[in-house]
Amino acid sequence: MAARSKTKEKILRTTLALLNNEGEVNITSVDIAAVMDISPGNLYYHYKGKDIIIAELFADFEDELRQVLAAPVNKPMALEDNWIYLYIIFEEINDFRFFFLNLTAILDRIPALGPKFARLLSLLQQAFERLLSGLETSGHLSFRIDEKSILSERLTAHFIYWLPYAKLRGLKGNSKIIIHEGVYAALTQITPHWGNQSEPYAALLKDFLDEQIG
Amino acid sequence: MAARSKTKEKILRTTLALLNNEGEVNITSVDIAAVMDISPGNLYYHYKGKDIIIAELFADFEDELRQVLAAPVNKPMALEDNWIYLYIIFEEINDFRFFFLNLTAILDRIPALGPKFARLLSLLQQAFERLLSGLETSGHLSFRIDEKSILSERLTAHFIYWLPYAKLRGLKGNSKIIIHEGVYAALTQITPHWGNQSEPYAALLKDFLDEQIG
Repeated sequence: MAARSKTKEKILRTTLALLNNEGEVNITSVDIAAVMDISPGNLYYHYKGKDIIIAELFADFEDELRQVLAAPVNKPMALEDNWIYLYIIFEEINDFRFFFLNLTAILDRIPALGPKFARLLSLLQQAFERLLSGLETSGHLSFRIDEKSILSERLTAHFIYWLPYAKLRGLKGNSKIIIHEGVYAALTQITPHWGNQSEPYAALLKDFLDEQIG
Repeated sequence: MAARSKTKEKILRTTLALLNNEGEVNITSVDIAAVMDISPGNLYYHYKGKDIIIAELFADFEDELRQVLAAPVNKPMALEDNWIYLYIIFEEINDFRFFFLNLTAILDRIPALGPKFARLLSLLQQAFERLLSGLETSGHLSFRIDEKSILSERLTAHFIYWLPYAKLRGLKGNSKIIIHEGVYAALTQITPHWGNQSEPYAALLKDFLDEQIG
């Protein structure tokens, strides 16, 4: 990616914060210019409209998520790092939450993002499948036919829709608590696949979760 | 609900078909009037804008879904009817799919629907919890602590987001196939909770699913 001017970088950071905190539908490019304390014309000189900024923010998200997802490929994870891995993915999504909170409308409005988003979903699904395969190989999980690919698909959907679902359900608390609940809900999809030899692992997991929420 | 004029009923059916088939964002009240072959002014006489029509369509959806969800309370289900029940719920959602395909934006735009939708989510969650409890009592399922309520919550999210997810993932096929895949994905969330005595049940389930898709 080409280096950005300081102003462009500041516009991106400002817009991301505004979209995340105020809701994507409520923010216009005029609002962005006002918060940046520049004229709409000056903003337009850097970015030709809000959707161009969103497309560039999506590119940032894609870069960061690819790096996160690639980490365990470069270096195998310790067992307890599996759960931390899920946290980090959720935190990444939360950092760009405006996107997930209004996904359909944004993808309808900016068609160029559609194929990119579809690619990212595939990457996410493959990452979950790798994680589950690792735990299967080590004997911590066991799957009937089809269950592993279906579970990794379902985890993908869970990660994509957790934030809007939590909003719909009126879950209370700060981001950290919402993410924690999301990871917990993800884990409860995995734990039914434990073999008997994995039961002691529940204690380790519980400690980890208690610590996160504490 | 007050009786509707024939014209109102026709406006509602026409709008529902348009929103479902063309996408909610692409349809204006002018389009609805054009397809109805009436003037925008005449349409406005009956409904004061697209969002008023959407709110009334939501009321219809709520009525129908409440009836569907209440069925097994009035009369206990036979074992195989559990899966048919899931199909019927999905079909109901599919009949009003425009709503689920653009949920966040519609709820942002029509705030009065928010609490109604939240109530409906609770009903759905309770219906799933009843279904799981029934199968637990009959010994077909077994749950560790918390797992039953978490699973029913997760099934709720699955039903709400399956159609937009299938669209994002580019799943091919007609509505029947998409619903079938959605039910199958729901079942794979339930089957890990089977006890050993439930294994023969897999064959019955497979037959049912093959029949649906065939």
